[in-house]
Amino acid sequence: MVCRAIGTTLLCMGALTLLPLLICAIYGEELLPFVITSGIFFLAAGILLTFRPRVKEFFAKESFFIVSVVWIIVSAIGCLPFVLSGFIPNYIDAFFETVSGFTTTGATIIRDVEILPRGLLFWRSFTHWIGGMGVLVFVMAVLPVSRESSLLLARAEMPGPVVSKLVPKMQNTAVILYVTYFALSFLLFVLLVLGGMPVYDSIIHTFGTAGTGGFSIMNLSVGAYQSAYIQWVIAIFMLLFGINFNIYFFILLRDMRSVFKNEELRTYFIIVAVATALISTNLAMEGEKLSEAVRHGFFQVASIISTTGYSTANYDLWPTFSKFILFLLFFFGACAGSTSGGLKISRVVLCLKYIRSHITRSIYPRTVVLPRLNGKVVGQETLGMTAVYVIVYMIIVILCGLIISPDCPDMMTSLSASLTAISNVGPGFGGVGPMENYAGLSALSKIVLSLEMLLGRLEIFPMLACFSPLMYKRRRLK
Amino acid sequence: MVCRAIGTTLLCMGALTLLPLLICAIYGEELLPFVITSGIFFLAAGILLTFRPRVKEFFAKESFFIVSVVWIIVSAIGCLPFVLSGFIPNYIDAFFETVSGFTTTGATIIRDVEILPRGLLFWRSFTHWIGGMGVLVFVMAVLPVSRESSLLLARAEMPGPVVSKLVPKMQNTAVILYVTYFALSFLLFVLLVLGGMPVYDSIIHTFGTAGTGGFSIMNLSVGAYQSAYIQWVIAIFMLLFGINFNIYFFILLRDMRSVFKNEELRTYFIIVAVATALISTNLAMEGEKLSEAVRHGFFQVASIISTTGYSTANYDLWPTFSKFILFLLFFFGACAGSTSGGLKISRVVLCLKYIRSHITRSIYPRTVVLPRLNGKVVGQETLGMTAVYVIVYMIIVILCGLIISPDCPDMMTSLSASLTAISNVGPGFGGVGPMENYAGLSALSKIVLSLEMLLGRLEIFPMLACFSPLMYKRRRLK
Repeated sequence: MVCRAIGTTLLCMGALTLLPLLICAIYGEELLPFVITSGIFFLAAGILLTFRPRVKEFFAKESFFIVSVVWIIVSAIGCLPFVLSGFIPNYIDAFFETVSGFTTTGATIIRDVEILPRGLLFWRSFTHWIGGMGVLVFVMAVLPVSRESSLLLARAEMPGPVVSKLVPKMQNTAVILYVTYFALSFLLFVLLVLGGMPVYDSIIHTFGTAGTGGFSIMNLSVGAYQSAYIQWVIAIFMLLFGINFNIYFFILLRDMRSVFKNEELRTYFIIVAVATALISTNLAMEGEKLSEAVRHGFFQVASIISTTGYSTANYDLWPTFSKFILFLLFFFGACAGSTSGGLKISRVVLCLKYIRSHITRSIYPRTVVLPRLNGKVVGQETLGMTAVYVIVYMIIVILCGLIISPDCPDMMTSLSASLTAISNVGPGFGGVGPMENYAGLSALSKIVLSLEMLLGRLEIFPMLACFSPLMYKRRRLK
Repeated sequence: MVCRAIGTTLLCMGALTLLPLLICAIYGEELLPFVITSGIFFLAAGILLTFRPRVKEFFAKESFFIVSVVWIIVSAIGCLPFVLSGFIPNYIDAFFETVSGFTTTGATIIRDVEILPRGLLFWRSFTHWIGGMGVLVFVMAVLPVSRESSLLLARAEMPGPVVSKLVPKMQNTAVILYVTYFALSFLLFVLLVLGGMPVYDSIIHTFGTAGTGGFSIMNLSVGAYQSAYIQWVIAIFMLLFGINFNIYFFILLRDMRSVFKNEELRTYFIIVAVATALISTNLAMEGEKLSEAVRHGFFQVASIISTTGYSTANYDLWPTFSKFILFLLFFFGACAGSTSGGLKISRVVLCLKYIRSHITRSIYPRTVVLPRLNGKVVGQETLGMTAVYVIVYMIIVILCGLIISPDCPDMMTSLSASLTAISNVGPGFGGVGPMENYAGLSALSKIVLSLEMLLGRLEIFPMLACFSPLMYKRRRLK
């Protein structure tokens, strides 16, 4: 069954690789790299699908394994067009770039992105769009597995502390999510084209924004488009793609009570408003024109909290206070159940409530405090898990920062590179700032950061579990 | 009863202030500042002690209040000699310096420490020695309160996740701890004098080392004493004062099994060994002589893990990798039940075990994992509390770093200043590096950092609880 799940995903990926092939054909560019890549996807899928499944069920353990392996294989094969075309001759560089794409991070090792052919750039940004929604969510819709198993798979791949089903069948939930994703992406594309952005550029930036990825085809990122309209549209859509997709479903059902009751959404908007106000004021006080300060401030806040990573200004040159606010947002991420990375606002909220309950109990030791989210009591197990998640997050950031530090000119570069990788943002501070790139790092650092991006995208535990020897013991508890 | 506890402490402090008075008399320096300060301590104590206690018991709530208020009042009065003598004319500067002393942080706002009179420098370092063991532990030994109440006070003031009583009576435990503290300090003093350090300097550096504080009377800190012997002695004693004082009690009882069984102690030594090895190698590879690299590496590791803050070299100029290891040690701190600050190794160990238990449960959801420390099962409540502690620690570091960031030239300065304050280390990186000082910060930043030092020294919760409105509600749960 494990082989079947992985095989089906690779089959889909093979089909998806045909799209950049089409783009290459349109622009008359080299077809071979994509033909070979697509072929390898199909070949691998064919081999895996010859195994007949014995059982139709799997447990948490297997779902962790499937998700981790799928993401690694897909990146390992998906990076071939870069290598075969000769534009990123080094395999590790290409792997880094592709992982950065699929995990919707947007960190790049390309010094000058504007010289790459259009087909390759399309594929690079297309990985954001595929990765944003998750490759397995799609597979779930087509794979004949039991209801419980598909929920386990969804838990392992989808972002957030609790995965809720919108409709009883997980498969249908996946379809609803995909339709929302398509509709929002299409809307953004139309708005960009109406704003005077070329069609090809609009597609690329739609992919980057929808997946909250951040790859651009311009060296100056979105800053290359001087139109304020385009910058506002992209900023607003970055925020929209950071919202839990369930919210759109509620809006469609005209269930506005569920929307307004949602604490995560409220906190998300409050954080964005406060951060924008603080940064704009700070920038305006430093002499920038107020309208510019607000636009740049809002754009950067939206870009970083949604973990997209686009930029309209080199925020690495901003005053320390503004940079520190952005640093804080690097941790947060947007809402659970969106395409964004980071800790997710709901985890931050849960954590704060857990802390408050502990303070209350330290004052009145015999009180029982039951923290609630959206009006529902949250179990101690979930709270403990959330706290552990936040700590593991911090530990990984600091440890990986330590490993890559010999390559970095200063501590903030290594710390922010590590943080931006696990949060799937993209640019950091200092040597990996918005106008810099990751080309100068050693192969070891690139592999560490690639792993961190994958850990961040899969929310750590599925992948961390794969490193645990417990996974491979033949113990079964029923 | 609250007044009585605070009053008794102030009485002790008044008596302790007579010692620097004696030093002033010996060196023929101005006596008035200390006479006035001592007088104010006695006066305040007199007023508070006129209240007759109605009850002889108090609860967690009251113990939090007492501990927080005592530490703030003692610092607020204890800083008067600096102001009155005119050497630190600004009250907030003097308060910062004194809080830094009592909390054994060792962060200074004095640009040139070598021009201060000897009596004042004695008082400055003496606060380290008083703060190291805690002013209230001493009071507990003399105050007639119930057994349970004194344990609550000890919990609120003493470092570590679990406070264990060595002997059935808490009062006797306090006496044993004090005797150990005196004996170790005396041993260090003798060793320093034998190494050729002047008697006065030896006393000062004994105070700074025993309290794991870090105030020196030299602008170059311990680096001013070129003797390798002195540097090694201080480094080793910094480590010794970072060990849980219970361990010395076990050694006296020849209970070596308890010593070897102690996981915290083992982990502490392993961390020190690994960190020293990594930094020494890194420094040696950068061209430093191996013996020098090992000495500087070991000294700095011991200084930072014990949260003392002495330095023999300007580590801010070291390669990024070495700095990053030190950055990691800033979080750790040494053992619970020592004079050090930071998270404490036992919390780090407990946290890692808690994380492992969650990973195991995510793979096998129906497994029950009971993490143990020193062979004893640790309850879920303690584990949850430990995780919450670590997260609150991080949140305070980042939020306070944000508040002080407008004063800082770069992000690492503000982040490390905030971290070093709550961990009670002293120096940080960049603008607050080992050869810099805190004089350039604004009054707001100094107050924020002072609060952070107090939060760190009292292990956050007692003081955080005082900010909670719950504390002042007339709710009693029996």
